[in-house]
Amino acid sequence: MERISLARRPCSIARALDQLGDAWSVLILRDVFLGAHRFAELEASLGIAPNILSRRLASLTRHGLLETRRYSQRPARSEYVLTEKGEDALPVLLALAAWGGRWLAPDGLPLVTVDVETGQPVDPVLVDRVTGKPLVPGGVAVVAGPKAPRAMRARLTTPRVFAGRDTP
Amino acid sequence: MERISLARRPCSIARALDQLGDAWSVLILRDVFLGAHRFAELEASLGIAPNILSRRLASLTRHGLLETRRYSQRPARSEYVLTEKGEDALPVLLALAAWGGRWLAPDGLPLVTVDVETGQPVDPVLVDRVTGKPLVPGGVAVVAGPKAPRAMRARLTTPRVFAGRDTP
Repeated sequence: MERISLARRPCSIARALDQLGDAWSVLILRDVFLGAHRFAELEASLGIAPNILSRRLASLTRHGLLETRRYSQRPARSEYVLTEKGEDALPVLLALAAWGGRWLAPDGLPLVTVDVETGQPVDPVLVDRVTGKPLVPGGVAVVAGPKAPRAMRARLTTPRVFAGRDTP
Repeated sequence: MERISLARRPCSIARALDQLGDAWSVLILRDVFLGAHRFAELEASLGIAPNILSRRLASLTRHGLLETRRYSQRPARSEYVLTEKGEDALPVLLALAAWGGRWLAPDGLPLVTVDVETGQPVDPVLVDRVTGKPLVPGGVAVVAGPKAPRAMRARLTTPRVFAGRDTP
């Protein structure tokens, strides 16, 4: 019930959470990125009940993050692959991994994200594509966009800063 | 039940989702970043039932993403502020916003993220802090880290690439 309403909220974070705000869905995407495409592979890798896996796969497919691809005609068998939209969610996964690595691995990391070419660990940081500036608390704000409802435009006459602890 | 087990998984994405894998928790963080610190402000801004808000605030506080700050002695009143750990989750929120903006706003954006100094819209991209290389499908992989359990190390003898549709 809550989920449905998120899809219609004006905030892009809320809308994104309508499709990515569930832990299993994100873990399924992770495993598809890492090469698990078939139902049985995902079930084994995630340790998830088959009915929950079915529901989440149906939701990810309905929302266009995954699509099915036939890999056997007889018997008829399909596997799940990323769409362009699903592939584009990688920064969300890597931002979660970076945060989890910094805050939730007090004894050192069991798994490390590396650059495929150099093998060196990567340290993901979110920057603006044009200026290269890191996007940090106090440095970014939300403003009313072209499709803001009138009431929101009236409320948001000045930018609302994503403030940090030290933002003046 | 599922949530508890995520915290102990070796993957940093799974661990992060144990604390950030719930839509309301992420939306609460968003609103605290944007200046809503008091229970009544959050309740109004999120349109959330008070019992759910209480539970999520308790969880975010217990996990150390938020902390309480007394703002009135008589009557005794507290508000919620970000910790350093909570503040450090901003890239997750902005990565979600960027994805939502690209895929879930077919008619244009109601809200736009801008650079506080220039007022220009930002286009968040995740790069490696050292090399500046964008982290894209086919370009990053997971390897066993210093604290990988032995069974995982045995399974992960070669890097597992976050593969995209076009990754060979």
